Amino acid sequence: MSNVLVLGHKNPDTDSICSAISYAYLKNEMGMVAEPIRLGEVNNETLFALEAFKFDQPRLVTHVAKEAGQVILVDHNERQQSAEDINEVQVIEVVDHHRVANFETTDPLFFRAEPVGCTTTIILKLFKENGVEVPLNIAGLMLSAIISDSLLFKSPTCTPQDVEAAKELARIANVDMQNYGLDLLKAGADLSNKTLEDLISLDSKEFEAGDRRFEVAQVNAIDVEEVLVRQKELELLMGNTISAKGLDLFVFVVTDILNNNSVAIVLGERAGIIESAFKSSVVDNRVLLPGVVSRKKQIVPVITEALG
Amino acid sequence: MSNVLVLGHKNPDTDSICSAISYAYLKNEMGMVAEPIRLGEVNNETLFALEAFKFDQPRLVTHVAKEAGQVILVDHNERQQSAEDINEVQVIEVVDHHRVANFETTDPLFFRAEPVGCTTTIILKLFKENGVEVPLNIAGLMLSAIISDSLLFKSPTCTPQDVEAAKELARIANVDMQNYGLDLLKAGADLSNKTLEDLISLDSKEFEAGDRRFEVAQVNAIDVEEVLVRQKELELLMGNTISAKGLDLFVFVVTDILNNNSVAIVLGERAGIIESAFKSSVVDNRVLLPGVVSRKKQIVPVITEALG
Repeated sequence: MSNVLVLGHKNPDTDSICSAISYAYLKNEMGMVAEPIRLGEVNNETLFALEAFKFDQPRLVTHVAKEAGQVILVDHNERQQSAEDINEVQVIEVVDHHRVANFETTDPLFFRAEPVGCTTTIILKLFKENGVEVPLNIAGLMLSAIISDSLLFKSPTCTPQDVEAAKELARIANVDMQNYGLDLLKAGADLSNKTLEDLISLDSKEFEAGDRRFEVAQVNAIDVEEVLVRQKELELLMGNTISAKGLDLFVFVVTDILNNNSVAIVLGERAGIIESAFKSSVVDNRVLLPGVVSRKKQIVPVITEALG
Repeated sequence: MSNVLVLGHKNPDTDSICSAISYAYLKNEMGMVAEPIRLGEVNNETLFALEAFKFDQPRLVTHVAKEAGQVILVDHNERQQSAEDINEVQVIEVVDHHRVANFETTDPLFFRAEPVGCTTTIILKLFKENGVEVPLNIAGLMLSAIISDSLLFKSPTCTPQDVEAAKELARIANVDMQNYGLDLLKAGADLSNKTLEDLISLDSKEFEAGDRRFEVAQVNAIDVEEVLVRQKELELLMGNTISAKGLDLFVFVVTDILNNNSVAIVLGERAGIIESAFKSSVVDNRVLLPGVVSRKKQIVPVITEALG
């Protein structure tokens, strides 16, 4: 029997990678032969976490059906965010904290989604429910995911459950949550070795709303202007992506992780919805989004509603 | 603020009704103002359980949006099995044990599905996870749902978790599981006061497979022939339903609860798939299904696969 593959979403972020590793660990402890994989390159923030807790990157697998009959999805459920050939395998479990959409199975499955800030907050519950101890290095990864998804607890997606889970994991991992967290976020906001192609693709997700398709890319930055100074070149690349994927809208969000604001560049045939949707002026394809840091809670539902 | 409505599927069975009542009880204990409702008439089996543990029927509500902004779905997630206007309200939670399909939200939610035999097996876990005690009468309802969905533990959908949950609930409810269970199933298999319209609609569910739509109705019987002797009249009614709903296939399953076999009447443009799908001859629109008792595990996946 082949392994069960455990995978996060395309353009993996720290939660997707760390959830895959930690949930695969739990399933192996429970008797399943499970292997964490990744669908794309890991980002600088995730690399920092993997190095800090001495993990190798999971193996890169873009097509899962050649290798496995069954998979477990973590940190996503929408098929366009998953492996290209996800429809050819059986999804036996999902552990996620996003909306449910574009997901369908033939058979009953284990589907555990909760409206918390991070997938590893749910995975910590699953360790407990199954009576499995979280080892130090796994706890470090799980903590990293919570810090990343919650921007060190400042995102509106962060719940009291995430804060409690992070505290518990920091104790097990034996790290100072604030110091480690700031170092982790800074590693992620270091854009110095990134191409413009990287910026619009590394943490980018595609969505559907009715017949419309849109994509939202997000980068964290210490200095937002450092990114925006290259707006014209970014727009060219965004235009190419819109044509290639047939998107109705592409939103590129640069988030200031120290001040918790964002600026977005918006392009596409349906970019006209942005002004009224966010009640903020679009000038030169650019819009200020004060207090907005969460794609999931503050951006995607607003666009979905406006396009629907 | 209006109540949160807790609802099972259309043509409610014992699990749908008992899950709605017991989960609404749990949510109220946890501080939410939740009310169980039903989308249709309760069947004889459910009535037996409600009377045994001294519950009134939940209120009949066919359109939820007039009454509530938020709902919780139990024992289903597919929108065509839910309230007619389900798309007009926010689904904040799902507790279910079926496949996931035709379900989509704008926002993250609490979605708990597990591949066990009965929704109340999952609800018992949720009582424990939230530190709430199951009262005697609620335990009786939850036990009734497990006995009903598992045909007294004989269905292939029944898992060891369901058996364990039933034992625990029987202790709390202070009933003999086997005696009470057989009485419950017999009450459900008493078809003497049923019209033919009742038989094809009381426990009937609609499904989609690709572009195809099919419906599977099921009745439990002590004497299968008592139902099948009226096949011609049943076929007329099934034909009407096919026309009215634009179905590609209608399967009416009569399950012998003492011997754990079924016989099905199959009609519709796509009825031709049944022979190869179930490897059994269709004679006079009738097919024998030895050992088949579970619509969810032994019928719907087979048809979905064959139509897809």
